[in-house]
Amino acid sequence: MLNGVGREIPVDISGIGALRTYQKVTANGQVKNLQRSKERQRNPERNKIIESIEAAVRATGLRDGMTISFHHHFRNGDHVVNMVMETIAAMGIKDLTLAPSSLSDIHAPLIGHIENGVVRRIETSGLRGALAQAVSNGLMNIPVVINSHGGRARAIASGELPIDVAFLGVPSSDAYGNANGYSRENAAASACGSLGYAKVDALHAKQVVLITDNLVGYPNVPFGIPESQVDYIVVVDSIGDSKGIVSGATRYTNNPKDLLIAKCAADVIEASGYFADGFSLQTGSGGASLATTRFLREKMIAANIKASFALGGITQQIVELHEEGLIKKLLDVQSFDLRAVESLKNNRFHHQIDAEYYASPDNEGCAAHQLDVVVLSALEIDLDFNVNVITGSDGVIRGASGGHSDTAAGASVAIIVAPLIRGRMPSILDRVNTVITPGHTVDVLVTDQGIAVNPVRQDLLYNLKAARLPVISIEELKAKTDRIVGIPEPIQWEDKIVGLVKYRDGSIIDVIRQVKKE
Amino acid sequence: MLNGVGREIPVDISGIGALRTYQKVTANGQVKNLQRSKERQRNPERNKIIESIEAAVRATGLRDGMTISFHHHFRNGDHVVNMVMETIAAMGIKDLTLAPSSLSDIHAPLIGHIENGVVRRIETSGLRGALAQAVSNGLMNIPVVINSHGGRARAIASGELPIDVAFLGVPSSDAYGNANGYSRENAAASACGSLGYAKVDALHAKQVVLITDNLVGYPNVPFGIPESQVDYIVVVDSIGDSKGIVSGATRYTNNPKDLLIAKCAADVIEASGYFADGFSLQTGSGGASLATTRFLREKMIAANIKASFALGGITQQIVELHEEGLIKKLLDVQSFDLRAVESLKNNRFHHQIDAEYYASPDNEGCAAHQLDVVVLSALEIDLDFNVNVITGSDGVIRGASGGHSDTAAGASVAIIVAPLIRGRMPSILDRVNTVITPGHTVDVLVTDQGIAVNPVRQDLLYNLKAARLPVISIEELKAKTDRIVGIPEPIQWEDKIVGLVKYRDGSIIDVIRQVKKE
Repeated sequence: MLNGVGREIPVDISGIGALRTYQKVTANGQVKNLQRSKERQRNPERNKIIESIEAAVRATGLRDGMTISFHHHFRNGDHVVNMVMETIAAMGIKDLTLAPSSLSDIHAPLIGHIENGVVRRIETSGLRGALAQAVSNGLMNIPVVINSHGGRARAIASGELPIDVAFLGVPSSDAYGNANGYSRENAAASACGSLGYAKVDALHAKQVVLITDNLVGYPNVPFGIPESQVDYIVVVDSIGDSKGIVSGATRYTNNPKDLLIAKCAADVIEASGYFADGFSLQTGSGGASLATTRFLREKMIAANIKASFALGGITQQIVELHEEGLIKKLLDVQSFDLRAVESLKNNRFHHQIDAEYYASPDNEGCAAHQLDVVVLSALEIDLDFNVNVITGSDGVIRGASGGHSDTAAGASVAIIVAPLIRGRMPSILDRVNTVITPGHTVDVLVTDQGIAVNPVRQDLLYNLKAARLPVISIEELKAKTDRIVGIPEPIQWEDKIVGLVKYRDGSIIDVIRQVKKE
Repeated sequence: MLNGVGREIPVDISGIGALRTYQKVTANGQVKNLQRSKERQRNPERNKIIESIEAAVRATGLRDGMTISFHHHFRNGDHVVNMVMETIAAMGIKDLTLAPSSLSDIHAPLIGHIENGVVRRIETSGLRGALAQAVSNGLMNIPVVINSHGGRARAIASGELPIDVAFLGVPSSDAYGNANGYSRENAAASACGSLGYAKVDALHAKQVVLITDNLVGYPNVPFGIPESQVDYIVVVDSIGDSKGIVSGATRYTNNPKDLLIAKCAADVIEASGYFADGFSLQTGSGGASLATTRFLREKMIAANIKASFALGGITQQIVELHEEGLIKKLLDVQSFDLRAVESLKNNRFHHQIDAEYYASPDNEGCAAHQLDVVVLSALEIDLDFNVNVITGSDGVIRGASGGHSDTAAGASVAIIVAPLIRGRMPSILDRVNTVITPGHTVDVLVTDQGIAVNPVRQDLLYNLKAARLPVISIEELKAKTDRIVGIPEPIQWEDKIVGLVKYRDGSIIDVIRQVKKE
């Protein structure tokens, strides 16, 4: 048979099989695209831009029962989840599983979508505000699943959590979907920095819809998300408020108790035996945790020690050390403030990484597993060093799993910083209300009243004592607290399970029950 | 049932299913890795380094009949293919399909592996030297499949060409597989620049073995290949000779005929109607093609025109225009010389792209589809403007499909540059011996004796004539040649098919037959 250029092509070849012959294909009545590159980008038949969220939802074929995802790089400034869910609800689609990387106060409108049956199930890292309260009060028939950031990446990559459509807000995109968390053409109105969580969804979701308020010229390189992973692009007025990325948990602290704890945490790092040239660190969210860097800086200069890399949510304080030459490279899965956003754009060794790279336990050499030191906050810690960062002292969900358990497991030294007492409630309990991070991966507790070392880490205990740091047992620390505030009444729970906490490997480490109605 | 932190976990949850309960896992008798980050990198139980290629092959479980792949970023300086194939042959593995991105003269030892049944089938972009000669003489029982670079990326990504194990030579890697085509710690002995073809294999192959001669500290960011895609790393003495990346086809030309053609090609671009601020271009390999940039430079400065991006194999000449500010961004799928390697490392908007991004027809907005102008070489062109870049005038395979058909189809103006006569053989034939690029995607032929425009492009014909460029019909150009060198004797072929040429969409555009024995 003659093919499209008049060549005789056999029907099949032994060892290869049936052959498909070349056909000369013309598109739109012409053999090739004759528009100039600049014009093509504006040609709706050639670009990926679609006129509305509704049209994008329709184009993806989204239907009842499917799973959709979002990222939380705008934290409490996000406009995308509510915008998309309102559209989907209006279209009459039901029974969706929502799998955002996390949810914030701003997402309270989801309550209505759950009540109306649009959302049937949620997988997230965290929940806050009215939505979290409602879930804790038994809003949902199926428990919310709480994932760590590494666990979510693992679940998505392994197919355990398949995503049908990802709706990803991006601060800049060209007409084909090369997207980033900032813009090099202008000062993006809605910059969020790293697209680390979104990158996982873009790579693995069956279909990807970008939502942007800032269409830029082709090619938008360097990109956080490449065009090859993008199906549709919707241009809207605003995808988010950059100011919302700075939450209380990532703000620069001047609280004296936080600073005291931070200073003590820096002393622990210095004495740990892991403070050596080329060490690596992460500081999690929370004032004392982030402030640790400030005190560590002086020690690094004094000892002429430079870090090989800092990981995780990147802040102004980490950026300053990087620019000073004290930290060689920054691996940024999430930018915690606008200074970090700016640095990601301008500092070449401030590098955008995805959540799989960051912390997936299936990714053998993931960055979290290369950490020497991590400093993490806690709502509660217990005598087994188990840590709770998800439910408050009233049992209501008010936090996020985040990278807590990932980095605690990965780092050689996992330091928990917490005030001994927080608003008349003790931080140390016999048993935390909810376990996010198992105690055998937690090494040191630093409080404003002393330091406790997990007995499994006799090496650290020895080093900290040798440095004359105020080390006492966690039982003694607890006794101190109890003498001041007493032992709190246990939380009253209903039988109904409202949340399942997955450990990073996907196993269930704890359940969250409905709080008792008063 | 109580889980690993003593929590009662239900067996299953309605709406979610069976639950796996958390187990406290200790590795190597300890709950977490207590080594310092720097030490971990050297710990064979913690890193991905494996002692030899043989051990890596064994670890991957490679067995008879599987498909393995390589990249050709070292072109004729590659050491990896021969090294790996020798090991595999010694291990007694047979019937492999070899799917490298391309093959060069240096790979002649493959002849032995084919004769011995180690290699049963080859998919590649090109073949050269003794191996190509042997294939043309009927060496293989199953025809070699020739893919374009975009077509190969499409075939791999779509699962049409599944790769069991990719063996990828990388000029720098840390102990977990963050790899790049240069090194930031040292002057990599074997730098090759972009890993654009290898990136596709790393992403899609079932297993990935990196082979490096330059182990660097963690984290090796920015990376071309992320650790999350890498299974094993083997350290060897040398993966390749950087000097080998510069072939005759990518060398700076001073040949007067080449320069004449290049100047004329630049005139065509200027007059085409597509030479406007923000235009985009690619120059393929071949002296005249690459030299076009030199003449275009003057026109860009004179008209104050800047290009938005240059694509493809990047050369010194393109880099110079970028550094001068005349080309905003470089999208580099393959670095054609050491100046390009250096620029990729140092110029932030010299960006490494993968072959899927470059030219996969399944990637709707791929960079090749955004081109205004491409300048390409040809071994032969015919009256239908079909182009041959794979078989010589004796019918023997001696070239590569490369990005030829991808960019011709994608660019608004695809210009072929060729001398009218090459060593007493005419470039214009009634019918090319092998079709790589179909004529309906080719727009202009520039020779040392005049310009021919494809009749489907009356717009270009009008513009070039208006600019008083020496345009004549391709039939007249052919007649000129025929008067000088006469019409060559047709090549004598055997019946046996030795090569199948796939168009970028996977259809068969031509077959290559065994050359007749003299």
